[in-house]
Amino acid sequence: MTSSGRRRAGIDVGGTKCLGVVIDSDGEVLQVERQPTPRDPDGLIEALATMIGGFGDVDAIGVGVPGLVTREGVIRASPNLFDVRDLPVGSRLSERLARHVFVENDATCAAIAEWKSGVAMGRSDVVVVTLGTGIGGGIVADGRVVRGRNGFAGEIGHMIVDPSGPRCPCGLHGCWERFASGSALAARARDLVSAGGGRAILARAGSETGVRGEHVESAARDGDAEALAVIDEFCRWVAMGLANLANALDPELFVIGGGLASTGDAYLPSIRKWFGRMLYAPELRPHPTIELARHRELAGAIGAAHLAEVEADGGH
Amino acid sequence: MTSSGRRRAGIDVGGTKCLGVVIDSDGEVLQVERQPTPRDPDGLIEALATMIGGFGDVDAIGVGVPGLVTREGVIRASPNLFDVRDLPVGSRLSERLARHVFVENDATCAAIAEWKSGVAMGRSDVVVVTLGTGIGGGIVADGRVVRGRNGFAGEIGHMIVDPSGPRCPCGLHGCWERFASGSALAARARDLVSAGGGRAILARAGSETGVRGEHVESAARDGDAEALAVIDEFCRWVAMGLANLANALDPELFVIGGGLASTGDAYLPSIRKWFGRMLYAPELRPHPTIELARHRELAGAIGAAHLAEVEADGGH
Repeated sequence: MTSSGRRRAGIDVGGTKCLGVVIDSDGEVLQVERQPTPRDPDGLIEALATMIGGFGDVDAIGVGVPGLVTREGVIRASPNLFDVRDLPVGSRLSERLARHVFVENDATCAAIAEWKSGVAMGRSDVVVVTLGTGIGGGIVADGRVVRGRNGFAGEIGHMIVDPSGPRCPCGLHGCWERFASGSALAARARDLVSAGGGRAILARAGSETGVRGEHVESAARDGDAEALAVIDEFCRWVAMGLANLANALDPELFVIGGGLASTGDAYLPSIRKWFGRMLYAPELRPHPTIELARHRELAGAIGAAHLAEVEADGGH
Repeated sequence: MTSSGRRRAGIDVGGTKCLGVVIDSDGEVLQVERQPTPRDPDGLIEALATMIGGFGDVDAIGVGVPGLVTREGVIRASPNLFDVRDLPVGSRLSERLARHVFVENDATCAAIAEWKSGVAMGRSDVVVVTLGTGIGGGIVADGRVVRGRNGFAGEIGHMIVDPSGPRCPCGLHGCWERFASGSALAARARDLVSAGGGRAILARAGSETGVRGEHVESAARDGDAEALAVIDEFCRWVAMGLANLANALDPELFVIGGGLASTGDAYLPSIRKWFGRMLYAPELRPHPTIELARHRELAGAIGAAHLAEVEADGGH
């Protein structure tokens, strides 16, 4: 079998569905499978084993799961999954299938997807930021994935950027994801509508509670000044977090993924503008570029399929 | 010559003085030299060459310099040195001495000192934070120094933690070093005195403008409630930045260095308390430990002397 013929399977375990792919060694997707995520540990292990079995002969298997995942493939906790604590997904699946299964945090998988077969291919210093319900992240430094001591690196959504800011479900105040996630954008627009403004946004949403990011985007595309201001302010917060990460890590490239990436062109110019003002010593250094992710919904699964390869590279 | 007999020279270039050391392979300091820092590029190169020459036969030479330093050993700019721009210290010294001279940012050198022969020896995921006039940092991830694409990683003092906070000389508002550096501690105490409070602090300082961190510490040691509150608030800001870094990088150990480390026992308990509250998902993970640096004034020079070794380890 030639190298380009190698087939790798990856599954992204989400709160509602498991999304599986088979990719070739160029990262091209050969097959996609979906099924609902079972609500209990045993059901999850069985469902994953069955999906993997259905992929036939593959050279490597990886699974991406939300939440805190140890380097040994144990889910410590996963608020978006079910009330799972200390589930050794890696070892249970490996036993069940009698072969090694790699397990990693889903945002790290999404980052690996961009690095191995997306817009960050061939780059050695990259930060991938997924802007969705929350903010996840994955870091590549000097050609290696940064996992941290326990495997918990990349929890950048809980970087505090304003301690007097809104309370986060994590219990703290002013976490970055309260300002710069997709849901934060919608929340700011609802605040505006609630205060009697944002008529163009409200007209598109139908009701205050129905306001979502797409309504802000739509109003902004039509030139509505309030919507444009909400987006600009949102982009300022995104840029602030990116600048903080750039100061710490000095990457050559940021990749913006997650739900927001699908309409990211509405945000990129403003994010880039603010980033250029918030980076330390901007006049003295090359600025990292900021690009949208190539992989969309499949990013986590594709990255999971690349896990074995990353491990072989010494990325662990 | 046995391995333990290998002598390595390191020089830490500061704003006022150059501090040189020779260490053995265990990191023990064999020799210390000091001389004033010349105020011009040619003078600096000559002074460094002369100091190195005075060290006699050494197996490796490294230099730590403040500011943005490229991976090729060029000082892009150094606000604390003199009006230097694009000075290729590495290549000029290497030519002058006809042998390779390693050059690195001084905070990165201080981090390497702790990692190679200080409290972080043998650890693979470490963040060293130097709290002094500003805040510098050095990151070790999975046993390698994180330098970033251009060599500028570790500029953690300019992480924005409160965009409505005080203006920083860098031009932004609310940089971490405006709250959590040694000078920030003194500034908060002066604010208190200026508002009519802090009598115990003022009594020790003599005048409002004379207030420094040591006066706050002294008052706090005597149980003064206002001084204790200033220190606790300061420690909360220190902990916030550490928590942000822990969420991104998941280190096993933070090392606190810089001027504050010499009396760091006055701060550690409060920093640890706040850190435990500000880390994401604190109940689900081992917490990184927070320790004081072993190396004090000599840290930068000792780290510079270790640079060749780090390079040989693939730390670049």
